[in-house]
Amino acid sequence: MCGVVGIIGKEEAPLWTSRGLYALQHRGHDSCGIAYINAENQLSVHSGKGAVADVLPNELTQAIDSRACLGQNLYTTYGSSHSPQPFGGRFWDADGKIHQVAVVHNGQLCGLDRLRKKYPNMYSSHSDSEVIFALLPHMKGKSILEKIISLVSELEGAFSLIFLSEEGLTAVRDSNGFRPLVLGNADAGETMLASEVNAFDLMGGHFEREVDAGEIIHTSWEGERSFFHLENRKEKLTQCVFEHIYFARPDNQLFGKPGYSTQQELGIQAARELKGKIDADVVVPVPDSATIASIAFAREIGLPMEMGLLRHHFASRTFITRGQSNRERAVRLKFNIVKDVIQGKKIILSDDSLVRSTTSKILIKMLKDGGAKEVHLVLFSPHITHSCIYGINTPTREELIAYRMEMDNDRIAAEINADSTTYLSIEGLRTAMKQTKDQYCYACMNGDYPIAKDGQLTGAS
Amino acid sequence: MCGVVGIIGKEEAPLWTSRGLYALQHRGHDSCGIAYINAENQLSVHSGKGAVADVLPNELTQAIDSRACLGQNLYTTYGSSHSPQPFGGRFWDADGKIHQVAVVHNGQLCGLDRLRKKYPNMYSSHSDSEVIFALLPHMKGKSILEKIISLVSELEGAFSLIFLSEEGLTAVRDSNGFRPLVLGNADAGETMLASEVNAFDLMGGHFEREVDAGEIIHTSWEGERSFFHLENRKEKLTQCVFEHIYFARPDNQLFGKPGYSTQQELGIQAARELKGKIDADVVVPVPDSATIASIAFAREIGLPMEMGLLRHHFASRTFITRGQSNRERAVRLKFNIVKDVIQGKKIILSDDSLVRSTTSKILIKMLKDGGAKEVHLVLFSPHITHSCIYGINTPTREELIAYRMEMDNDRIAAEINADSTTYLSIEGLRTAMKQTKDQYCYACMNGDYPIAKDGQLTGAS
Amino acid sequence: MCGVVGIIGKEEAPLWTSRGLYALQHRGHDSCGIAYINAENQLSVHSGKGAVADVLPNELTQAIDSRACLGQNLYTTYGSSHSPQPFGGRFWDADGKIHQVAVVHNGQLCGLDRLRKKYPNMYSSHSDSEVIFALLPHMKGKSILEKIISLVSELEGAFSLIFLSEEGLTAVRDSNGFRPLVLGNADAGETMLASEVNAFDLMGGHFEREVDAGEIIHTSWEGERSFFHLENRKEKLTQCVFEHIYFARPDNQLFGKPGYSTQQELGIQAARELKGKIDADVVVPVPDSATIASIAFAREIGLPMEMGLLRHHFASRTFITRGQSNRERAVRLKFNIVKDVIQGKKIILSDDSLVRSTTSKILIKMLKDGGAKEVHLVLFSPHITHSCIYGINTPTREELIAYRMEMDNDRIAAEINADSTTYLSIEGLRTAMKQTKDQYCYACMNGDYPIAKDGQLTGAS
Amino acid sequence: MCGVVGIIGKEEAPLWTSRGLYALQHRGHDSCGIAYINAENQLSVHSGKGAVADVLPNELTQAIDSRACLGQNLYTTYGSSHSPQPFGGRFWDADGKIHQVAVVHNGQLCGLDRLRKKYPNMYSSHSDSEVIFALLPHMKGKSILEKIISLVSELEGAFSLIFLSEEGLTAVRDSNGFRPLVLGNADAGETMLASEVNAFDLMGGHFEREVDAGEIIHTSWEGERSFFHLENRKEKLTQCVFEHIYFARPDNQLFGKPGYSTQQELGIQAARELKGKIDADVVVPVPDSATIASIAFAREIGLPMEMGLLRHHFASRTFITRGQSNRERAVRLKFNIVKDVIQGKKIILSDDSLVRSTTSKILIKMLKDGGAKEVHLVLFSPHITHSCIYGINTPTREELIAYRMEMDNDRIAAEINADSTTYLSIEGLRTAMKQTKDQYCYACMNGDYPIAKDGQLTGAS
Repeated sequence: MCGVVGIIGKEEAPLWTSRGLYALQHRGHDSCGIAYINAENQLSVHSGKGAVADVLPNELTQAIDSRACLGQNLYTTYGSSHSPQPFGGRFWDADGKIHQVAVVHNGQLCGLDRLRKKYPNMYSSHSDSEVIFALLPHMKGKSILEKIISLVSELEGAFSLIFLSEEGLTAVRDSNGFRPLVLGNADAGETMLASEVNAFDLMGGHFEREVDAGEIIHTSWEGERSFFHLENRKEKLTQCVFEHIYFARPDNQLFGKPGYSTQQELGIQAARELKGKIDADVVVPVPDSATIASIAFAREIGLPMEMGLLRHHFASRTFITRGQSNRERAVRLKFNIVKDVIQGKKIILSDDSLVRSTTSKILIKMLKDGGAKEVHLVLFSPHITHSCIYGINTPTREELIAYRMEMDNDRIAAEINADSTTYLSIEGLRTAMKQTKDQYCYACMNGDYPIAKDGQLTGAS
Repeated sequence: MCGVVGIIGKEEAPLWTSRGLYALQHRGHDSCGIAYINAENQLSVHSGKGAVADVLPNELTQAIDSRACLGQNLYTTYGSSHSPQPFGGRFWDADGKIHQVAVVHNGQLCGLDRLRKKYPNMYSSHSDSEVIFALLPHMKGKSILEKIISLVSELEGAFSLIFLSEEGLTAVRDSNGFRPLVLGNADAGETMLASEVNAFDLMGGHFEREVDAGEIIHTSWEGERSFFHLENRKEKLTQCVFEHIYFARPDNQLFGKPGYSTQQELGIQAARELKGKIDADVVVPVPDSATIASIAFAREIGLPMEMGLLRHHFASRTFITRGQSNRERAVRLKFNIVKDVIQGKKIILSDDSLVRSTTSKILIKMLKDGGAKEVHLVLFSPHITHSCIYGINTPTREELIAYRMEMDNDRIAAEINADSTTYLSIEGLRTAMKQTKDQYCYACMNGDYPIAKDGQLTGAS
Repeated sequence: MCGVVGIIGKEEAPLWTSRGLYALQHRGHDSCGIAYINAENQLSVHSGKGAVADVLPNELTQAIDSRACLGQNLYTTYGSSHSPQPFGGRFWDADGKIHQVAVVHNGQLCGLDRLRKKYPNMYSSHSDSEVIFALLPHMKGKSILEKIISLVSELEGAFSLIFLSEEGLTAVRDSNGFRPLVLGNADAGETMLASEVNAFDLMGGHFEREVDAGEIIHTSWEGERSFFHLENRKEKLTQCVFEHIYFARPDNQLFGKPGYSTQQELGIQAARELKGKIDADVVVPVPDSATIASIAFAREIGLPMEMGLLRHHFASRTFITRGQSNRERAVRLKFNIVKDVIQGKKIILSDDSLVRSTTSKILIKMLKDGGAKEVHLVLFSPHITHSCIYGINTPTREELIAYRMEMDNDRIAAEINADSTTYLSIEGLRTAMKQTKDQYCYACMNGDYPIAKDGQLTGAS
Repeated sequence: MCGVVGIIGKEEAPLWTSRGLYALQHRGHDSCGIAYINAENQLSVHSGKGAVADVLPNELTQAIDSRACLGQNLYTTYGSSHSPQPFGGRFWDADGKIHQVAVVHNGQLCGLDRLRKKYPNMYSSHSDSEVIFALLPHMKGKSILEKIISLVSELEGAFSLIFLSEEGLTAVRDSNGFRPLVLGNADAGETMLASEVNAFDLMGGHFEREVDAGEIIHTSWEGERSFFHLENRKEKLTQCVFEHIYFARPDNQLFGKPGYSTQQELGIQAARELKGKIDADVVVPVPDSATIASIAFAREIGLPMEMGLLRHHFASRTFITRGQSNRERAVRLKFNIVKDVIQGKKIILSDDSLVRSTTSKILIKMLKDGGAKEVHLVLFSPHITHSCIYGINTPTREELIAYRMEMDNDRIAAEINADSTTYLSIEGLRTAMKQTKDQYCYACMNGDYPIAKDGQLTGAS
C-alpha cells in the first residue's frame, strides 16, 4: 500500500504536498518523498526513509519556490524493495530537447519481464515502479503526454500514477481500478490529486470526483485539463475491497463510499450474522482499528462496548521490536488490558481482520491472564486465504492462518486459544458494501485473481 | 507531572526500570533517565531529552550488570527547568567515608529559599529537585538513611521521592500525599516502586499497596524492609484530584481507585447532572482522553456515541508545531472530523477538562465548519480557576478561561463559540470519587491551597 | 579530481577497497562510495557525502561477504554535480538474461549531447559519469565485456574507469591517458586497480604497472586477465602534468614517476632558474603542499628553510568557513605565522601553484603584519591561465590571476602585495619532468587543449 | 593537559572564546565548553564531547549576547574523568543573596580527601576540578572574590584557574607555576586570559605578560584590575619542562620562551651531544611534532633532512582505531613511508620524546621493511621514567619504556629494533632551556616531585 499526492498551480506546492502525505501516512510509513519543478524550471527530488514529519519538515518544504509537486508514502509490498519514491530525472529526445519528468506509483505491476526485455535500460533499484519511470524516453510521441499514454497502454497490473513534467501534472488509473485515486481542486482552480479524499483537507482543497478506472487526466501549468482513456477499459471493475476494511480512514471516502459508515455497516452486518449465536457480556475492540465498527456492532447486537484494551500512546516501534526475544513482549508493550473491564466477563474481542493471527493470539492470552472468562474473536471481514499481488502487503499464503487451518473456524479458535472465532461472510461483506454490480476484487478472500490468474508475480523484483 | 520508578534485588534492573518508565511515559516526555549501582558497586546516571524509547534503548539498558536502579520521566512544571533526572553523585562524610546516592522526584517543593540560605551549596541546575540531592551531605546522621530522614523532615511541598544508595532503595511520600507512589514486588521478593500501578506489569511485578502519605520505606540490598514516618503527619490527606481526571491511565489504579471505573463514574455523574437539560443527537468525545468517560456518559444520558473526531495516528509534535503561523493549523494536523457523523447533528462534544480552551475552540470551529448544527461542550471536571503549585503544569491564572470568564458558563460558551458549556460540579466530582472523608486537594478548582496558602511559590526556580 | 579503486579475488574486498579509498582521500572528499558483488551474487552500492572514514566505517565494510568491489572518492569538477559514485544497477538483455554492473569514473567526458540524443534513456543525476552507466544496456555485444568495449569506443574526453560485473573487473583508460590508473596484485594473484600506487600499500597489494592509455584490462572472477585496446590510440600521450604538481602524494608514484623526487626536481629546477636573482634570508614553505619541494629548493639555492607558517593540526573546514564574513579570517584560522622565524627577514614564500591567489595574498599580509621585511613568492609551477576540461577543478578563466594580470609577474606581485613573484617556466617544468617525448597535457598553462580544442564543454551538466 | 581561555569586556565574548579554544585545541580534544554571563545577567554553560569546531560552532556562539566568557579544552589526565568543563552554577549566601559562578581548570589537584572531608558536599562527577567549583559557597568572605582567595589558599597541586562571576573574571595560578597562564588585552582595554599566547591572535588581542606563579588577577566588568598573591609563594618555581617539549606550539611562547626557537635549541643541543657518534645519511623527522627541531638538528649535525615519513592529511582517529586487530595497522593508516627517501639509507629517525614506544617501534619496522639500511632513533628529550601527577597524561610507570629498560639505551634500542637510541641529556635540556636558576619541574625525568613527594595522588578520582 502506498499513498500518492499531486498538486499544480498553487504557491508553496511542496508544503501542501507534504501535508497531503501527512494525511495519508496510514497508507505507508517506510519512506516518503516529493518531486517538484521550481521557479527556475528545475525538477528536484527529495526523499528518504521514515515518516513525513521527519523526511519532509516544514522548514524544508516551505523554503522551496514551486507551484507543482507530487509525493508518495511508501509501504513496502510483495516483491518490491525499499526504494523511496518519487522517481525523477531528465532525458534527451532524438532532437536533443531535454525533458524533465517525475512519477509516483501506488499498486503493483505484472508482466515486467516482457517490458524489461523489450527496451534496453539500466535499473538502479529493485522497485517495479522504476520501470514506469525508466521506459518513458523509449516511448513513441513528441510530447511527454503522448509518451505517457503510450507507456501506460503497455503496463499490466495495478497502478494509480501521477506524473509531473514541464507539460503539467498527469493522473493515470489502471482499467481494473484496483487502487483509488481522486481528483480535487482549490478555490483558485488549482488541480489536486490524492489516493484518498481526506488529503484534500490539509492541502486546502476540495474533492471533485474519482479518477475513473482506465482514465488519464492531464492538467497543464495553465490549469487546462484534458482527458484520455486506456483502450483496455473493463466492463467490470475490480477495486480492492480490502482497502475498505483495513487501510482507509473513517474520516474519508474511498471508491465513492464514506469510510465511517462503511465501517459501521461492517459492524452491523457482523452483528446480524452473529446475533443469538454468542453468549457474551461485553464487546472489547482492538483499538484503534476496530473501534468504530465495534460501536455499531455492539449497538446492533445489544451489548455494551468497553475499552478493555488500550493502545500505548507513545508506542515506539523501535523500542518494542528491538532486542525482544519474543513477539509477546512486543505486543505487551503496545497494548495494555483493563482488568476492571474484563475480569470475570465473557468477552467479544472484535478486530477488523485476521491475517497471520500472531497479535490476536497474544491479546487473547493477555485477556485470559487478566481474568476474562471467555474470549470470542469476531472479525469484521471474511477469511484471508490468498496473497494479494496488486499492492497490498499480505504475507505468503503459507503464513495465512485461514489458509493453514483450511477456513475451519474451530481449528482457528483452537490455534489462538479463543473460545470461538467468527468471520463476516463474503456475502455479508457484499451486503455491507451495498454492492449492486461487480465492482470489487475479492482475490485475497476467494482466490479469484482478475489478472495474472495464478496469483503469481513473475519478475517482480 | 513526572513519573518515578525504582527497583532493587532483580537482575537487569536498568532494563526493567526502562520498561516501567515506558509504561509511565504519559506522566512526562520532556526528558528521562536512570541511575543504577552496578556489580562493581559504582553508581552511574544516564539521562537525556526525549522519550524513553529514544533515551533508554534496550541495547543500552540490557548491557548494564545491575540489580538496583531508579528512573524518572520529566514533565516540566511551573518554575522548574528542563534538567533531566535522576540526580546522582557521591560525597565524603566527616570520617572520609565515601557515599553514593541518586534521587528522583515527582512533585514540587515550597520554601526553598530557607533551605538554600541555611546550607552553603552550589547548584548546577534550576531544578527544585536538585536541592534534595545537594543537601543530603549536610544532614545529621551516620547512615544515608538517617540523612534522608533528616532531610525530608525539612522539606515542604509535594514530593514523592525514591533514593538509591549503597544502603538500598528508599521511598518517601510527603505527609499531604499530593502525588501517588506505590509499592510492589516480584516473585523472588524484589521490591519495586512506581508512580502508578500499571508500571509493575511491564516490570514483571505485582502491586502490593500504596506508600502512605508521610511514610518512608527503606529496602536493603538483602531485601529487608524498614518503615518510618514523617513527624508532621496530616489528619487530612490532600491527594491531587486532578490526577484522576487528566493523567492517570484507565488501565491503572491511583490513590487506591481503578482508573477505568473512575472515568466511567465521571461520565455517569456528568450525565446525571445534565440529563434533560440538553437537546442533542450524538456524543462525540475528544479522543483518546475522553473516550472512556464518554462511553459511560452516552449510555447514562441515553444518546449514541460516535467517533466524530479522529486523532491522527502518526501525529508528530514536531511536524505540527514547527513553523506554524497559528495554532489552528496545529490542531487541524492532529485531529480530523468525520463529516458523516456530524453533519446536521446537534453534538455533545465531551472532554476531560478545559484549561486555556485553545484546542476546544478550534475543534468546535472544525465541527461547525464540517456541518454540525449545534455543539455543546461537556466537561468531565469542574472549572479550573487556579494554578497548581504542587507539580501539575497548569498555566498562570490569567490564562485559565474559567478564571478569565469568572466561571460564567455562558461567557465561556460565547468565547469558544459553543452553543453551551457545562462543567461537572465539584460536588459531582466528590460523588464520582465516592469520597467519604477529606482526602483530595481541589486547589486548582477552588483555590483552597493546603500549604503555601497564597498559591505563590517563592524561590522555585 | 577523483580517486578510483577496484579489487577482485580477495576476501573482505569491501574493507580493502575502503582502505584504498582512504589512501586516496586527497583526490576528493566531497563524497565516496563502494559497489560490490556479495557471496549471494547480488550487486549492492553504498555511498554518501563526506570522507571515507565517515561513509565507509570498518563495521560496515567488514560485515560484507564479498570478493569483488570497486570504489570512488569524488571531488566535484567543472560542470558535474555532487552525485556520489559508484553507479550500479542491472539490466535485462533481449534474451531476458539479467546482468548486474557498477562503474566508477575519474575524468570528464566531452560530447555528451551526441550520446544522449542517440540513445533514449532517463538520467537521474546531473553527473557526466551517469551516461557511462546508463548506456551500457544499449550497446552491441552479448557479454558485458563486449558492451563495455563498444561503449568506451564511443566516449570522448578524459576517463579512467573501473567496471564491476558478474563477468569480472574491467579497467579502461582513455587514449590520451589524461588521468592515471595503475594495476597491482596481491600475493595470491588477486587483481587490484587504483588511481595511484600508494593505495596498494593499505590494500595489502603490490604495484605491477600502469594501465596503458587506450588499454582495457579485464580480470575474470577466476583471476584470468585479457587485454584489449581502443582503436583511436594516440601517438602522443597527454597525461595531466598538473597531477604531478598538485594532487599526487610524495609517498607515491604517478605516470611512472615517484612523487617525492618529482617534487624535489620541481624545487631544484625553480632554484636553478632563480639563483642569484633574489636577495633573501630564509625560505618559508606553505605547509604541507610545498614542504618537500622547498627542502630541495632551499638546499639548491643555498638558503636555510624554516617553518615560518604552521598549519593548524585540527583545521576544520566547517569551523573555518561557516559564518565567516571574509576569507581572511578563514585563512587565519588555518595558518599561523611564527614571528621568531620571520621578523625582520627577507622571506621567500614557496608554494606549489597560484590559481586564484586569494590564500597567498592573505598569507603575505600575515607575514608582513608579523614583521617580515620582504616577501617574495616563488611558485613551483608555471602560470595557470586556462581552465581544465579534463577533470581538474580549476575555476573559470576570469578567476585565474595569471590570466587576469596577463602573466605579468610585476602586476601579479603588486596585486597580492608581494615584493616579487616568480614562476617556474614551462621549459623548467619539462626539464623537471625529465620529459623526452610528448607525453603531458599543459592545457591549463598554455591553452593547448588536446581534445575539444576550444576548451569549452558542451552539455556537461 | 588542558587549555583555558577567558575574556571580559568584549562584545561577542563567546565567539572570541571559541576561537581562543580553537587555537589551543592541541592542549586537549576530549571535550570542550564555555560559560558566559549574558545581557540578562544569566550564567549559562555549554559543553560537550569532541573538538571545538563541533561542540562550539559559530552559529551557536555568535547568537549569544554576552561580554564575558571563559572556556576549556579537556585532555583527560591521570585519575580524572571525562567531565567536560566549565563547571557553572549558583549559590545562595547566608543573607539569601544569589551568586553565579563558573570555573575552568588546567592542572591536577593533590590532597583532595582533606577538602572533601572538611566540607560536606555532593559531587556529581569524578573530576578533581569539581571540588574547586563545589566548595566556593563554603568559603569565608562576603564577595565571590574573597571566597575565591579563601578557596585557592586551601588548594594543593597544579592549578591554573579562571573564574567568571557577576563580579568579573579572576585568574589564579598556583605558587609552583606548574601550568602556564598568560594575560592579554584587546585594543579597547578588554582583559583576556589564556594558557598560551597564540590564543590571543584569534581572539583579536595582544599578549601583556604571564600571570605570575601564586598570583591572583581580578578584572571587574568595568575593566579595573586588582592583584593578590597566595601566601605560600615559592622561592623556586617548578614550571613543567615537558610543556616545552611536547605540547606548546612553535608559533607560540611559553613560560616566557618562544616555542619555535626552543624547539630549535632542543635540536641543536641534541646534535651537539651526538655529533661524530652516529654514521648516518639522512635525518627523517616524525611529522609534525619533530619537524622544526629536526631542521635545526640536521643543519647542526651536517646531514640533509628529508620527509621520509608522511602523516596522512585526513587521518581519522575513528577510522584508524575502530575495529583494528592490532595497533600496527593504526599507525600504518596514520603514517606512510617514502621509499625514495629511505631505500638503502642509514636513517636518523628523530622524535620529540619516547613514552611507551609503541608508535616508534612500528615506524622503525615500516622504515626497515621499506628498505632503510639502519634506523637510529634520536629523541629531543631525556628519558621519561616517572608519571606526572601535575596534569600531564603520562601512563603508569610500568608502561614507560625508559623505566622498564632501566634507562639502558642498548636495551631500549633492542626492544624497538632500532640500531641505536639516543636521548638528550637532562643537562642538555637545561642548556637548551637556557636555564639560569631553578625554574622547572623535571619530575617525569628524575622523580624529583616538588609536592606530594612520593609521586602518588590520593583521592584523585
